Amino acid sequence: MDLQKCAALVEYDGALFHGFQLQRDTRTVQLELESALSGLSGGCGRVEGASRTDTGVHASGQVVSFWVKSGLGIRAVVQGLNFYLPGDVALRGACFIDGGFDVRRRAVSRQYRYKVVQSGARAPLSETASLRVGHRLDVDEMRRACRALIGSHDFGAFATELDGTVASTVRVVHEAKVVVTGDVIEMWMTANAFLRHQVRNTVGQLVRVGMGRCSADEFAALVDSDRRSVAGPAAVARGLCLVKVSYDTPLGFAS
Amino acid sequence: MDLQKCAALVEYDGALFHGFQLQRDTRTVQLELESALSGLSGGCGRVEGASRTDTGVHASGQVVSFWVKSGLGIRAVVQGLNFYLPGDVALRGACFIDGGFDVRRRAVSRQYRYKVVQSGARAPLSETASLRVGHRLDVDEMRRACRALIGSHDFGAFATELDGTVASTVRVVHEAKVVVTGDVIEMWMTANAFLRHQVRNTVGQLVRVGMGRCSADEFAALVDSDRRSVAGPAAVARGLCLVKVSYDTPLGFAS
Repeated sequence: MDLQKCAALVEYDGALFHGFQLQRDTRTVQLELESALSGLSGGCGRVEGASRTDTGVHASGQVVSFWVKSGLGIRAVVQGLNFYLPGDVALRGACFIDGGFDVRRRAVSRQYRYKVVQSGARAPLSETASLRVGHRLDVDEMRRACRALIGSHDFGAFATELDGTVASTVRVVHEAKVVVTGDVIEMWMTANAFLRHQVRNTVGQLVRVGMGRCSADEFAALVDSDRRSVAGPAAVARGLCLVKVSYDTPLGFAS
Repeated sequence: MDLQKCAALVEYDGALFHGFQLQRDTRTVQLELESALSGLSGGCGRVEGASRTDTGVHASGQVVSFWVKSGLGIRAVVQGLNFYLPGDVALRGACFIDGGFDVRRRAVSRQYRYKVVQSGARAPLSETASLRVGHRLDVDEMRRACRALIGSHDFGAFATELDGTVASTVRVVHEAKVVVTGDVIEMWMTANAFLRHQVRNTVGQLVRVGMGRCSADEFAALVDSDRRSVAGPAAVARGLCLVKVSYDTPLGFAS
């Protein structure tokens, strides 16, 4: 059977997923995508993802790849897979790519957004996709701390559960900014790649900065330190969203 | 028992509510608030709302009133009721008001927001609080149509199920605007008050304008016409949110 390779832009609500990656006996995004693919193609093709999001983490711009039968058009792939997928995950678009194109290895950066709501009382409409803090955070101090993240650093202090098999904990952060809209604080981070739990540990530490429990200088010292897995605690997964995976040449998704 | 009257700012996810108003044998926002109030106060006090939202409609700024025991502070009222309330409804703040203050009759305007997502494919992260349309809408024509809404008009054409008991279908619209951010179109409407289903029928007709099935001039003619209940069809409830209820003197909510 003739096959062609597709990349797809995937959006999901992470609440009821045990993360992206396939695991035995649990519901993951990859599992649902592979089930839908077998519905569409009749086979049991593999789906590869560009970024492995954790349990509870959302995505508006995950990128995945898979093979489908030649002759299927993009619209048929998108609508066909969306027909089989459950309500909390969907393809936003797709495109054909070279058979040798690896969506994970070829990605040049990942962008994540973390949302914090400052409120002394519960906020039902935003609680599924944010962390709520009862205090007003010191945003200026958080912004000063963010400056220390930019560039190439050994982020070992911001990683979780290093098991010795990770070749390097050096990553290159392109963007680390804090955007405030009313009671909502968004933290945006872009890097060539992230260590496990790096974004959530960074946000957890930034929230400590905002609460005055850690200064921007102490935060910067953590970035420069040789200590391992000491930043955080990790901010709750539901506040995090994978927004964009970038390539040297943008993939031209259509629906 | 000495009582004091409170106003409260209430937020809810409308998905699992049969609207605001108390009804026999169904789950409504008013029912949950009155249950929580009896948990807090031991009595079975009545809760009054400023705006009656329909089944499935959300609110970030509903205003309600109720009586509590004298001596309770604002923080105790807010945290106490939020302790008893389920996850999809909460008080964002409260304040004490004069015993004669009627939150519905004294409200001078209500502001609603309706969210439309333009996308050919499903969008799981926004689907619980928006209408998705597969077409690109003509936003300029929708804006021209909106201009016809401003001011005092007989909005009978935009009402549903007029039963002859409505004294007047004249309402004063203060604001009707269309805000575009990427694929998201927000329609904002503020009026002294709205007829039943008026906002959703207006949005339904505006979407027809955006699709080219009705011109801005035809829309304006509908606003000026004497016909009844002909606009629409009503846009789906989940896209609508009651954002703000305003008073001559702003209520000073605290949490």
